[in-house]
Amino acid sequence: MSSVQFDRIALIGIGLIGSSIAHDIKRLGLAKEVVIATRSAETLKRAEELKLGDRYTPSSADAVKDADLVIVSVPVGASESVAKEIAAHLKPGAIVTDVGSTKASVIAQMQPHMPDNVYFIPGHPIAGTEKSGPDAGFAGLFEGRWCIFTPIPGTDEQAIKRLRHFWESLGSRVDEMDAAHHDKVLAIVSHLPHLIAYNIVGTADDLETVTESEVIKYSASGFRDFTRLAASDPTMWRDICLHNRDAILEMLSRFSEDLSSLQRAIRWGEGDKIFELFSRTRAIRRSIVEAGQDVDTPDFGRHALDGKK
Amino acid sequence: MSSVQFDRIALIGIGLIGSSIAHDIKRLGLAKEVVIATRSAETLKRAEELKLGDRYTPSSADAVKDADLVIVSVPVGASESVAKEIAAHLKPGAIVTDVGSTKASVIAQMQPHMPDNVYFIPGHPIAGTEKSGPDAGFAGLFEGRWCIFTPIPGTDEQAIKRLRHFWESLGSRVDEMDAAHHDKVLAIVSHLPHLIAYNIVGTADDLETVTESEVIKYSASGFRDFTRLAASDPTMWRDICLHNRDAILEMLSRFSEDLSSLQRAIRWGEGDKIFELFSRTRAIRRSIVEAGQDVDTPDFGRHALDGKK
Repeated sequence: MSSVQFDRIALIGIGLIGSSIAHDIKRLGLAKEVVIATRSAETLKRAEELKLGDRYTPSSADAVKDADLVIVSVPVGASESVAKEIAAHLKPGAIVTDVGSTKASVIAQMQPHMPDNVYFIPGHPIAGTEKSGPDAGFAGLFEGRWCIFTPIPGTDEQAIKRLRHFWESLGSRVDEMDAAHHDKVLAIVSHLPHLIAYNIVGTADDLETVTESEVIKYSASGFRDFTRLAASDPTMWRDICLHNRDAILEMLSRFSEDLSSLQRAIRWGEGDKIFELFSRTRAIRRSIVEAGQDVDTPDFGRHALDGKK
Repeated sequence: MSSVQFDRIALIGIGLIGSSIAHDIKRLGLAKEVVIATRSAETLKRAEELKLGDRYTPSSADAVKDADLVIVSVPVGASESVAKEIAAHLKPGAIVTDVGSTKASVIAQMQPHMPDNVYFIPGHPIAGTEKSGPDAGFAGLFEGRWCIFTPIPGTDEQAIKRLRHFWESLGSRVDEMDAAHHDKVLAIVSHLPHLIAYNIVGTADDLETVTESEVIKYSASGFRDFTRLAASDPTMWRDICLHNRDAILEMLSRFSEDLSSLQRAIRWGEGDKIFELFSRTRAIRRSIVEAGQDVDTPDFGRHALDGKK
């Protein structure tokens, strides 16, 4: 289906996203050589055991040497240190991209360090699961998912096209927008949902009147849906909160305002108002299913696997 | 595996829960005859097309005649009118139960109308999906799920035992607690998650800076998990809000308080505090998976069905 697109690809960071990219590169034969770098000796060893690449090194500087494509997949708070480390060792003409969930901050951290003779194209594949680490990755994670580029104005169109082709080979559809808009969109579709999920799980954990064992036993009535997001990698999500602060705070304010209004409707028994909100939200799920962004089977289709213990 | 437990079972209401019970009764041969009643002519016709019972009637009063077990599966706000309608027609010695998500309110609505010679045992199977109506039901919905009874003190133990046996035949495990405690537990594990889900979907729908089409396209990054709950039946959930008001308002306050605290931590860049919250919530998901109340596969296992369009 595909063929070699890059002689050497360097993957900096080999967690869920990095390792999923590695699986796809191998499966599709997109590179002659894949070099993997991560600072954690343990993770590097695991990546090697999983045969995710061809060469393994704890040094990002070492990994990017002669690489035609460099993909940085680290928590967004680590972007600047990676940029500093690799800058002097990048091959002229190389494409450097990332997969971070916040874009203005990543650009601010990396762009100043990038040499003029490389193409830095910030990117963000909208895909993932609640699992983390090199064992969590799998081929096909990006299939049918969107990947957003937030290129800096004036970036070479040919370089963008090459990177676009790469992501399309992984099954993604590619969109372009500016970084500020990306950060607002992601604040509502991803960051706020994660925060809310972490928050409600925390609230439940703190109750005195309801035991943790009750929360666990009866979680199939709704709560368990939130725990998936709340099981996501804490370092990654702490960094997102700190690096997309303004957009997140704006969405949080709006959410809280709406929640106060709903709370008031419940207190005063305003059934019609409640019904109106509960009705219009159905349409959005239908659209998501129609857009191929979720499954239509009840309970996310997990029923087939469910209740078997 | 099972055998006839009741000569005649009357199902009042034949939505997701009622029709799932019907499927199980038939599959397991738990009754000689199943009579189905619902006020909607359309729903009644559909129940008949689906062959969910043996006899169909628009009249609850008619349905409960000579029934040994009556299961009321209607939105909780309709409990009193059903109780009034069936009261004079119940067979002496019959067991009357319900499946409502709020219990103090259902008891207040139904108990005053129940004749002394029937056994009224309020119940709540902790199971369901986001789908509604008679087509949504399926055999096995209650398998591995809990069913909570909130019996009125002094209720005949033999009758409770019979009803417990019935639910256990459906694969449920049965718990007993008082109605007020049930309502608090469900407020946190079910009602609050649904409200939050409805609310965030509403917030996203109202944004001016992010289009609805963007929300839909990029929903795989977290948002889509919330839309499942927000697609639940609006009438049922309006009634729950109105009928478990106090417990819901208490949980909403706690949630909002915690969210304000998280918001403040984000504003002031308190990374350690954020990290602490995001770490401890992981443990709860692990417990839920270990308790058999959710699947361990990433993305609720939906990945196998996902992204295929």
